[in-house]
Amino acid sequence: MERHFERDLQGLRDVLLGMGADAEFMIQTSVQALVEREDGLVEAVLAREEKLDQLSIEVDDRCFTLMTTIQPMATDLRFLVAAIKINSDIERVGDQACSIALRARSLMQLAPLADLVDIPRMADLAQGMVTKALEAFLRRDALQAQAVIQSDDAVDLMRDQAFHRLLGTMRSEPASVPAALNLLLISRNLERIADHATNIAEDVVYIVKGEDVRERGNKERVAGLRKPRD
Amino acid sequence: MERHFERDLQGLRDVLLGMGADAEFMIQTSVQALVEREDGLVEAVLAREEKLDQLSIEVDDRCFTLMTTIQPMATDLRFLVAAIKINSDIERVGDQACSIALRARSLMQLAPLADLVDIPRMADLAQGMVTKALEAFLRRDALQAQAVIQSDDAVDLMRDQAFHRLLGTMRSEPASVPAALNLLLISRNLERIADHATNIAEDVVYIVKGEDVRERGNKERVAGLRKPRD
Repeated sequence: MERHFERDLQGLRDVLLGMGADAEFMIQTSVQALVEREDGLVEAVLAREEKLDQLSIEVDDRCFTLMTTIQPMATDLRFLVAAIKINSDIERVGDQACSIALRARSLMQLAPLADLVDIPRMADLAQGMVTKALEAFLRRDALQAQAVIQSDDAVDLMRDQAFHRLLGTMRSEPASVPAALNLLLISRNLERIADHATNIAEDVVYIVKGEDVRERGNKERVAGLRKPRD
Repeated sequence: MERHFERDLQGLRDVLLGMGADAEFMIQTSVQALVEREDGLVEAVLAREEKLDQLSIEVDDRCFTLMTTIQPMATDLRFLVAAIKINSDIERVGDQACSIALRARSLMQLAPLADLVDIPRMADLAQGMVTKALEAFLRRDALQAQAVIQSDDAVDLMRDQAFHRLLGTMRSEPASVPAALNLLLISRNLERIADHATNIAEDVVYIVKGEDVRERGNKERVAGLRKPRD
């Protein structure tokens, strides 16, 4: 029984790792579709989404089956609850990548913008956060999870810079409004991907240290800069 | 033991119901702040957010304690797992309401727009979805949950209409770009609130019927219209 359970947990970790790889592929490919204006890449992202959704349903089922059949101890139960939450975050990262891919497709119908602001760099950063958050989860590495949580500020800063530059473009060149708006919404999608990575990292700190970092995050938000959250 | 557990579950339902009421207050008040250009209402939203965050942490702890100390049966475990997921959705509804309140504050610095597009109506609809999804959860009412899931299309449609009208405004009146952009982002916040209500409703169907409606939702998305998701 004990060894079966260990094997089941390992299987669950492997599926989550595979889902993480799918989500990373989708982020990278959706931004490549934007840069290269290549519709085939949009299709590749949408096809991968179907796979990711199926895996997500499978992970929920596996977690629930383990919880009910094994009656695991507190540590394993904590891991399983975190797995359910993280599963949902990975699936939503995939949703955001699809959204980027579809906006990239809309942009292909419009005259190319001279300036993609910092989208590709922002995508690299957000994708790296997802990778590192999942690694931290699988290795129960609270230190790396904390590093992910700290990276979130850099993404928020890039989103704000993109916002102000694109606002300027829209005011000075009304014809560029549709394209600039799509780009602005892509920067929001990337920021939300970074938020999901942060959620995952917060769950990691919680399962490893039994400490809720959300509380501290909120206090900082209240004390410091209040920015709208997308 | 049995009766303690029942009482604990009831306590948990009450806290979640209270959180739902807080989230509804925040949606309503943030849109009121927008319409009345009243900064005091922005503050009221932000203050309520602190309370909501505290309750959210408390709910996670309660669920986890019940899971580990009682070793509940499958049905109750399913309820507790759903409570953890729903808790996180309610907390994120609060985040979106804060975002609306802060954008309302930004709009107070700008000349008023003649047209608030359908924001107040969209807010009513989204808020109603949150209320109904939580009622469905507490009453285990799969039928009402399905109705919430169906309302999501109406919100998406209003978001698209707002997008096109605001795009037109921005192109024809460059001076209105900052205000129109804030309004456009508020319509996205409302759409995300409706998405959270839909997530809650999907969890309700899952715990009541043991059927995963996400799968069907995805098939519909693949077969039909592919819209970026915000």
